[in-house]
Amino acid sequence: MSVEKAYNVAVVGATGAVGEKILSILQDKQFPIKSLKLLSSKRSAGKKIMFDNKEITVEEAAPGSFAGVDIAFFSAGGSITKQLSKAAVDAGAVVIDNTSAYRMDETVPLVVPEVNETDIKEHQGIIANPNCSTIQMVAALKPIQAAYGLNRVIVSTYQAVSGAGNAACDELQEQSQQYLNEEEMKAELLPVGGDKKHYPIAFNALPQIDVFGENGYTLEEMKMINETKKIMHAPELSVAATCVRLPFFTSHAESVYVEVEQEGLTVADFWKVLDGAEGVILEDDPSTQTYPTPMSAANKEEVFVGRVRKDLDNDKGFHLWVVSDNLVKGAALNTVQIAERLVRNNWL
Amino acid sequence: MSVEKAYNVAVVGATGAVGEKILSILQDKQFPIKSLKLLSSKRSAGKKIMFDNKEITVEEAAPGSFAGVDIAFFSAGGSITKQLSKAAVDAGAVVIDNTSAYRMDETVPLVVPEVNETDIKEHQGIIANPNCSTIQMVAALKPIQAAYGLNRVIVSTYQAVSGAGNAACDELQEQSQQYLNEEEMKAELLPVGGDKKHYPIAFNALPQIDVFGENGYTLEEMKMINETKKIMHAPELSVAATCVRLPFFTSHAESVYVEVEQEGLTVADFWKVLDGAEGVILEDDPSTQTYPTPMSAANKEEVFVGRVRKDLDNDKGFHLWVVSDNLVKGAALNTVQIAERLVRNNWL
Repeated sequence: MSVEKAYNVAVVGATGAVGEKILSILQDKQFPIKSLKLLSSKRSAGKKIMFDNKEITVEEAAPGSFAGVDIAFFSAGGSITKQLSKAAVDAGAVVIDNTSAYRMDETVPLVVPEVNETDIKEHQGIIANPNCSTIQMVAALKPIQAAYGLNRVIVSTYQAVSGAGNAACDELQEQSQQYLNEEEMKAELLPVGGDKKHYPIAFNALPQIDVFGENGYTLEEMKMINETKKIMHAPELSVAATCVRLPFFTSHAESVYVEVEQEGLTVADFWKVLDGAEGVILEDDPSTQTYPTPMSAANKEEVFVGRVRKDLDNDKGFHLWVVSDNLVKGAALNTVQIAERLVRNNWL
Repeated sequence: MSVEKAYNVAVVGATGAVGEKILSILQDKQFPIKSLKLLSSKRSAGKKIMFDNKEITVEEAAPGSFAGVDIAFFSAGGSITKQLSKAAVDAGAVVIDNTSAYRMDETVPLVVPEVNETDIKEHQGIIANPNCSTIQMVAALKPIQAAYGLNRVIVSTYQAVSGAGNAACDELQEQSQQYLNEEEMKAELLPVGGDKKHYPIAFNALPQIDVFGENGYTLEEMKMINETKKIMHAPELSVAATCVRLPFFTSHAESVYVEVEQEGLTVADFWKVLDGAEGVILEDDPSTQTYPTPMSAANKEEVFVGRVRKDLDNDKGFHLWVVSDNLVKGAALNTVQIAERLVRNNWL
């Protein structure tokens, strides 16, 4: 990355869970920032946030906020993206959006840098960050697809409550204590804040993430299906998903079945392409009970893969267990990585 | 069931979690008992247990314990079954065994009554009760297989800690409180009591149930694969399993992908055969967020099925979410149901 060049950066949703993580990663990675503007809803405006030893006052996000901004990170919900991203683009900024607002828009690149970095240069002002559960899966699938071809993916997810925001974490924490105290659990948020019914998540599993579509799939499941095909440039790839919310705070885990094109592969062939793949760490040794878990992957940057097994019936079938921190690689880190590739390649 | 005839019954492992459940189900169902003998290890012998308003003293199980016994329920671990079942059979008892000792023995029927009741009559003194995660899956698969044929099953499980015994429940409870108190969690048992390493289960997910075999699959996964083929009389059926332990106390849930033989089926066709199938309750209405959860299935006898979806790429592919109480239908209830069919059909 050029050390001379630096950028005017804005973060919309700076006080939210993902916004905070974006700021801490920008700082850790010493992203070349000339100026930093922190934007939020009216409610959070006026808060002060420390960045690089300077105090920055959060301002209310408005169409006029983006004058001179080069890169605007959006993570304040899909409706804010729809309201303000055009103003940011018109002001000359490249928007990197963490919501689902434009992910399936044909004019918007949907990017996991390890998988489809060069899509970034096709942007028309907006680049979308994929859904958390999609990002970690495609990062693990890419080296497999590149080496052996890929025909089919069937995934069942094990997803942390933090994917539903800080309030969902509070709900899990409170319900857990209520249960241990033998008190009645209060369920007011999960599985989906805006939906009709709420069920306890503590010591339970909820097979619903996001609302249901007309085909009986949840929107989370459809995101995994459609985003995977788009990111991997594989419209013919079969993808099926079942998404389940579970009582842990951090990291999503995924039980992934794949069918490759090449015949006669072994687990060792899978290890060979996964070990050392960009952004992937192989943790797979049954003899020492080595495999990733949500807790072992928390606060780490990589996607961890274990439990690689060959299907016992299908020569082209393999099973994997894929785990990553849903707020790091699943959200803020991937967003910053898109920005890094954007400036490194001079694709602004 | 004949009201005149009654049986001399023994329960080996009467003081364990499953043994206690067997006793309460025998009583609830008014199983025709002439005499009841409660057997245990030396350590628990002498305990007194109330059954049908009578106090029964637990005796130490020994080869001589089975004189006159008609039906002996075994749930004291595989080594006790191997030590004592021959003595019970030699004494004229039919053994219904809740361990994995003889499940894959070709001379031993492996039975889920809704699926393969008539296998009971082939017994040579021992009938095996399948693994908990297998029982609920085959109960849901049977009506599908019968109506539409079945070629393939891929399952990812979401399993309760009670499957690893009462001590595992205590460990989850203690670790949960430690975590909420911001204390270090003590991991001394899970994923597998006798294995080398232990990891926290509270607010985590462990992709290991039972020890690993040489092919990289765990024994739990191999049980699901092999037992399903045996119970369903389908040696050619493709079955793949990934088994995961999760931080809840009761019920196993399963994300099941199936491929049927018949073309052109719809979700409604699946609902039709599942709704009202023996031992199965369909809970599936996305418009009202109706689906089973581990908590909703706890302490119930049936296998609950929801989230039925047609695969978006494969005309013969469907996805299901199957939940049942792992200690009830997954263990004690199925065991007693085998005994009921045994006596009802006079197959002793």
